Amino acid sequence: MKVSFEEMFNLLEKVLLEKGFHPDRARLCGRIFSENSRDGVYSHGLTRFPSFIQMVDAGLINKNAEPERIGSQGSWENWDGQLGPGMYVAYRAMERAIVLARDHGLGAVSVKNTNHWMRGGTYGRLAAEAGCVGICSSNTIANLPPWGGIDPRLGNNPLVIAIPHREEPLVLDMAMSQFSYGKMQEYELKGEPLPYPGGYNGEGRLSMDPAEIRASKRALPIGLWKGAALSLMLDLLVSSLSGGKSSPSITAQGKEYGLSQFFLCIHPEKMDSRIADEIIEYARGSRLDENTRAIFYPGEKMYAERKKNLAEGIPVHREIWNQVMAM
Amino acid sequence: MKVSFEEMFNLLEKVLLEKGFHPDRARLCGRIFSENSRDGVYSHGLTRFPSFIQMVDAGLINKNAEPERIGSQGSWENWDGQLGPGMYVAYRAMERAIVLARDHGLGAVSVKNTNHWMRGGTYGRLAAEAGCVGICSSNTIANLPPWGGIDPRLGNNPLVIAIPHREEPLVLDMAMSQFSYGKMQEYELKGEPLPYPGGYNGEGRLSMDPAEIRASKRALPIGLWKGAALSLMLDLLVSSLSGGKSSPSITAQGKEYGLSQFFLCIHPEKMDSRIADEIIEYARGSRLDENTRAIFYPGEKMYAERKKNLAEGIPVHREIWNQVMAM
Repeated sequence: MKVSFEEMFNLLEKVLLEKGFHPDRARLCGRIFSENSRDGVYSHGLTRFPSFIQMVDAGLINKNAEPERIGSQGSWENWDGQLGPGMYVAYRAMERAIVLARDHGLGAVSVKNTNHWMRGGTYGRLAAEAGCVGICSSNTIANLPPWGGIDPRLGNNPLVIAIPHREEPLVLDMAMSQFSYGKMQEYELKGEPLPYPGGYNGEGRLSMDPAEIRASKRALPIGLWKGAALSLMLDLLVSSLSGGKSSPSITAQGKEYGLSQFFLCIHPEKMDSRIADEIIEYARGSRLDENTRAIFYPGEKMYAERKKNLAEGIPVHREIWNQVMAM
Repeated sequence: MKVSFEEMFNLLEKVLLEKGFHPDRARLCGRIFSENSRDGVYSHGLTRFPSFIQMVDAGLINKNAEPERIGSQGSWENWDGQLGPGMYVAYRAMERAIVLARDHGLGAVSVKNTNHWMRGGTYGRLAAEAGCVGICSSNTIANLPPWGGIDPRLGNNPLVIAIPHREEPLVLDMAMSQFSYGKMQEYELKGEPLPYPGGYNGEGRLSMDPAEIRASKRALPIGLWKGAALSLMLDLLVSSLSGGKSSPSITAQGKEYGLSQFFLCIHPEKMDSRIADEIIEYARGSRLDENTRAIFYPGEKMYAERKKNLAEGIPVHREIWNQVMAM
């Protein structure tokens, strides 16, 4: 079934208000979940909402906690997220980084004790829509093996880079695994193999079978040893700059809460959009391989999905929709 | 054959002085080339020195040019590298970013019109040895296809992250291709296949044969579409923040000079090294796959190679050593 953006937003805001969220953050969190579904990031939109509410009910997310500034060094502040809703804390942190960057050229906020931000691209885009380059990262519970290892001991720590460009910023929002577990589950449900190897099977061989990778818990880092190393460095970056929990500490809790994040903003006095035009057009000008109809810039497919969903409605699973309706 | 670090450094400094480099930069550039060989990054050490000198002789590198500050916004400065030696400009830029970060918490220098920095890890390590997190990137001539394309239209733009940790910082220094062309050439010369697919052959199939990938010019980006997207974003970041040349513009010149780079430094008042210890030890605690004897942190193999080379001498190709001796 399909619902309009307004229907979804109104429903989620209403549920959050009934759960006791202050109106400002019911509005913000409801909007972010709805925008994620609207933009085709279904895994972190409505689909994820019930487990978010479960974490609120379990007291792992402090619905009305306000993040607190615990340190400041000119253009860089350190915050304690007080275990507030991850989307709310991340949004406020990037907003603050934008203000700092307008004053200092650069601005950053490191945050400890926060929660899952759902889609990191949201906060990169926030900076880019304010005319800034936005870069952010978060750690996660461990779900990726280190290079040469077979146990999940690294987070799937996402890296986000957003850069202003004419009407719509370019947004890269990438986790460190080649395929997320959510994406592998989608292929498994459709009964399809992955289009490329996504991990190792129980015998230690590269596999395109989502079920056997999900069973072995040996997802493949992007670029093999390179993505494993980048994941480790991002965890170290967000946790040591904030003084917060690392992926190992989060994993030891058994539940994914109390994360560490970092938000960086760069404020250019002017940016020449022709440079981005040139880079995009040059990439697009390549001859295509036989499986490809067009080359896309980072974020382009997301904007196309948004346009389609705004015109035709956002696809939702009926059971999840009904589940949220009944909350 | 093997030479000591001092022998290599003295030789390179002498050649640079004879070529008319000012003493300070003959010393700095000679040291950086020698340290790259010492640390096992042979492709960007002595081996690369003759082609560096060729570019100086051809006037593509202005040996004694001094980078010029052309813009400033508090914690972020924009420089024109004046086509100086890339190592010299990059070293000065990160030094300045460190000073800015000490004053503001964050510091950055964007640079246009600079040249190849050889090993990006050098400048990340400079920041980390000053107690800061150092992040930097550069663009390059196009040598990587965009995702779905078959022509090289993206740079192999490296991303460097260095984080202080006890005696030796952790250093990630990674290009966007799974294997560099230099590394593929090494395998080809040894007559060995790559250990993992490194690109496509002429028929568009993934290949582990370095010769056929070098012929097709279709190297594989790390993480497939993800690395291609990150490469595009890094080019956009360094060129639009500096107002400098993009990978397409550099490629149009036919020769790799006049690059754009970005240097970011984050100065923490204190960093708790136990967080890094915890992350490293947790990763190392994984069970190993059957091909692996140990799990390493980013930079660890480099430090081991350095130690070995300082004790036993740095391996060099006799022809290259003699070629430089005769300069």
